[in-house]
Amino acid sequence: ARPRVGYYYSGRSPNRVVAEKLCSVKVGTIISIPAVVTENCSVYDAVVAMFIKDVGTLFVVKEVGLLEGVLSRKDLLKTTLGGHDIHQLPVGVIMTRMPNVIYTTSDETVWSAAKKLITHQVDALPVVRSATQADGGEGLEVIGRLSKTNITRLFVELGEGQ
Amino acid sequence: ARPRVGYYYSGRSPNRVVAEKLCSVKVGTIISIPAVVTENCSVYDAVVAMFIKDVGTLFVVKEVGLLEGVLSRKDLLKTTLGGHDIHQLPVGVIMTRMPNVIYTTSDETVWSAAKKLITHQVDALPVVRSATQADGGEGLEVIGRLSKTNITRLFVELGEGQ
Repeated sequence: ARPRVGYYYSGRSPNRVVAEKLCSVKVGTIISIPAVVTENCSVYDAVVAMFIKDVGTLFVVKEVGLLEGVLSRKDLLKTTLGGHDIHQLPVGVIMTRMPNVIYTTSDETVWSAAKKLITHQVDALPVVRSATQADGGEGLEVIGRLSKTNITRLFVELGEGQ
Repeated sequence: ARPRVGYYYSGRSPNRVVAEKLCSVKVGTIISIPAVVTENCSVYDAVVAMFIKDVGTLFVVKEVGLLEGVLSRKDLLKTTLGGHDIHQLPVGVIMTRMPNVIYTTSDETVWSAAKKLITHQVDALPVVRSATQADGGEGLEVIGRLSKTNITRLFVELGEGQ
């Protein structure tokens, strides 16, 4: 173990040490399991799925697992309020649809992904990788979920060293 | 300005520098304006207030501004789904009520408040201070809001020094 007192050569100010540490963590190391539904799922079933899986954001995928859209708690709340028949209305009508979905990858830094969450005012990003379907079509396969909860948990862990 | 290269005496490992920095920021420096409703507000009006004020959590206060409860987007979504008459149902029926509300103060560290967000699985905390009413009653006055968004924004800012 390293001694807890002494001289370290750093050449870096404390703020820089902090910034470099925060920017060294990759998305892949802190992501959660994604919760997904398909496009023909009803709004009612999507709300139920959100509670059962205890997430704030659902990803909408094609049957083969490729990303089609994103559904937030806010989208669902707006729809349940609107007097629609939520047992009939499919989530495809209300979701944010590709190519307007903001996403991240395992290799991106958490810092850069956190910036996307703030800039685009969303609570979670799908973590994706490129995939080729059997019919030769290209798409993005959903492999994880990165939310503000993951960032907050990382913040708590990094502060634990004190 | 400090030179960007050279020896610093620190006696601290980089992880400790990061932890000390993260634990030095106080809640009061990063909080947002609270969005409040009163206990007799209907669920419908609360959802509308949530969209207009663009927040994910509302605080419920007495007319004099003392904290009575908290309403999350999840609480409201559950209620809109339940087939209640949300124009009649007051938020007092569905909110999390004092003394079960988790809160923070301006002087607490962001790190400690972030730990509360994770431990109690909530998206935001009311920032309060002790207050005495005209009739001599004691309570907690709501002076701000600390959410996972504030933590994520701080994370982005601290990483910006790179």
